[in-house]
Amino acid sequence: MDSATRQIAVLGSTGSIGQQTLDVVRALSDRFSIVGLAAGQNSDLLARQITEFHPRLVGYQENWAPPRPANTEYEVLSLEDIARHPQVDTVVIATSGKSGLSPTLAAVRAGKTVCLANKESLVMAGRIICEEARQKGARILPIDSEHSAIWQCLNGEREQPNQLILTASGGPFRNYSPDQLNDITVEQALNHPSWQMGPKVAIDSATLMNKGLEVIEAHWLFDMPFDNIKVLIHPQSIVHSMVEFIDGSVKAQLSQPDMRLPIQYALSYPDRLPNPQLPRLDWGRLNKLTFEPPDYDTFPCLKLAIEAGTMGETYPSVLCGADEVAVELFLSRRIRFTDIARYVGQTREQHQAITNPTLDEILAADAWAREKVRQMAEGNKR
Amino acid sequence: MDSATRQIAVLGSTGSIGQQTLDVVRALSDRFSIVGLAAGQNSDLLARQITEFHPRLVGYQENWAPPRPANTEYEVLSLEDIARHPQVDTVVIATSGKSGLSPTLAAVRAGKTVCLANKESLVMAGRIICEEARQKGARILPIDSEHSAIWQCLNGEREQPNQLILTASGGPFRNYSPDQLNDITVEQALNHPSWQMGPKVAIDSATLMNKGLEVIEAHWLFDMPFDNIKVLIHPQSIVHSMVEFIDGSVKAQLSQPDMRLPIQYALSYPDRLPNPQLPRLDWGRLNKLTFEPPDYDTFPCLKLAIEAGTMGETYPSVLCGADEVAVELFLSRRIRFTDIARYVGQTREQHQAITNPTLDEILAADAWAREKVRQMAEGNKR
Repeated sequence: MDSATRQIAVLGSTGSIGQQTLDVVRALSDRFSIVGLAAGQNSDLLARQITEFHPRLVGYQENWAPPRPANTEYEVLSLEDIARHPQVDTVVIATSGKSGLSPTLAAVRAGKTVCLANKESLVMAGRIICEEARQKGARILPIDSEHSAIWQCLNGEREQPNQLILTASGGPFRNYSPDQLNDITVEQALNHPSWQMGPKVAIDSATLMNKGLEVIEAHWLFDMPFDNIKVLIHPQSIVHSMVEFIDGSVKAQLSQPDMRLPIQYALSYPDRLPNPQLPRLDWGRLNKLTFEPPDYDTFPCLKLAIEAGTMGETYPSVLCGADEVAVELFLSRRIRFTDIARYVGQTREQHQAITNPTLDEILAADAWAREKVRQMAEGNKR
Repeated sequence: MDSATRQIAVLGSTGSIGQQTLDVVRALSDRFSIVGLAAGQNSDLLARQITEFHPRLVGYQENWAPPRPANTEYEVLSLEDIARHPQVDTVVIATSGKSGLSPTLAAVRAGKTVCLANKESLVMAGRIICEEARQKGARILPIDSEHSAIWQCLNGEREQPNQLILTASGGPFRNYSPDQLNDITVEQALNHPSWQMGPKVAIDSATLMNKGLEVIEAHWLFDMPFDNIKVLIHPQSIVHSMVEFIDGSVKAQLSQPDMRLPIQYALSYPDRLPNPQLPRLDWGRLNKLTFEPPDYDTFPCLKLAIEAGTMGETYPSVLCGADEVAVELFLSRRIRFTDIARYVGQTREQHQAITNPTLDEILAADAWAREKVRQMAEGNKR
């Protein structure tokens, strides 16, 4: 892009990543322009965003009354049609869960630059998305802090690295015993120690499922075998991930935990832009960075996810579907925190995987897993 | 270079960096070839190196008997003539102290790739060397672990960074009080906690003069104002330095403390090469990295060096000359450890700086400072 203004569509604009994306656009309005906004929740906020950013393209849930603030004109389109619209060059996929998959594919097929915050797209359909991106010349740029860190460390490097080291804060229940996890409340699980995030990601962070999904995502984004992706618990959330190169040298990316930095880097790449709103590391307070291996027994979701990624086929799709419903059930207080891993594991055991699945088969596996978890929860209640 | 064999001259081949350079060449002999060797000490080792590597060009001290191992033929040349020889494409400057300056300039003027381990060259004559390198298209690649770390972090980045953060182990006397430093013995000062190094660098590391020289070197290598270069004590010597970019993102380079890595990176750049002899970080043992600000009062050499760099002109040359003689006097047990900073500081106070000095004026300032320190030591003894 260099000095041209980037024409951006934000899908999921009222969620945590969506709002922070608009913060970055607001701070750097000479470089970034909002062409499209779409949201499935919070129509009041969407209406305010439309008033402020004057997008030409808007997407919203069917059952909403279309927000029509005064002095605004826009075309109403599906997420997919916004993602592939000719006036858009950069699509920020900031929706959570499965809903990101279809617009991601639409954007990739249209050869757009895709700034991807949604994990499930690559986890469920990494092979299809990456193959399409190669064919269409679409770039997939990560917005997750971990993948952004790895991507920044790979900048300018020619060789495939030895190993990727994904750091994890460990979530709010680091050092808990399995027993202590039984009685976790929704409020405790939503209270993440270092990051602000939406409820689905917050619960996935508490179970470490989130880190497992990130391992699968890293596999696809950086074409890295699962055996060469390592997870390290780093409670301070300052080192966002690391890369070990073939000569033994390691690079790490550090910053205050603030999603606006990886968002801005994806939007400004290959440039970096000064933004006084982004926090700087306080070198006087950076006194200790600690690292420890994750506890796979206490946090089985991490293991389940890495295994699903390694097994491939429709297993990651089943993992995502089962997890998304299990997290919903936990958030609505219908199952326990520890049931999430249990239900996801049991769903996987019952799954008949499909080799080299099509997109329809991937979506069918996801739907099957969702139904399976609902049945389990129903059965349990009786 | 890519797959071609690099034709290397190692000046200072029997010192610590020189020997480790030959270790790297030995391990990667399909990529690196030794064309020239030169040493001013240890003629037995130089003879063995000649037998092993069959250099066509050899340099040695005038008062030595030329080492002539059986079945070897070579031309005897000065360091400068080796550095600019047409058969050499890469010159490793691994001599310590002032002796590196003249061959560095010769290599730069001949447009060679200069792998620079010698700090004094850039500290004394940074402006002249950098200007010549620009004019002649010579590349100066750092071999110091700190500058290599910064250089690796800058890889692929377009914008000038916000800040360079040089890490320092703190040396063997970290957390000592000024009083405790009075009675330091030579043996204590040579015993560095994390790095293997020659005696001059070991003492400079103990006084933190070494870190101050590195600040000046970083100023020239990366065209960075002194106010934007920060020093942080990091006793584990795992993070070798960091770079803060304009968006607040920070990159760090980590590895086991082993000089062969920065040596190899400078030789293989822009490639990285696998070398099983290089240690890898043990992720199971990487549990804690700590950082603290340096104590400028207890280690006045650090402050003296940064001030000399900021003052510029002939001050850095005076700093180098005074320090080199003071370290020699300490190593020969003629002055105390704390006298090093005192003599360097007093020499600076008496210096009449020359604006925009020529090379001759730089060398004259160095000679003046050396004489001054010798006089002080003499005067003290009487």
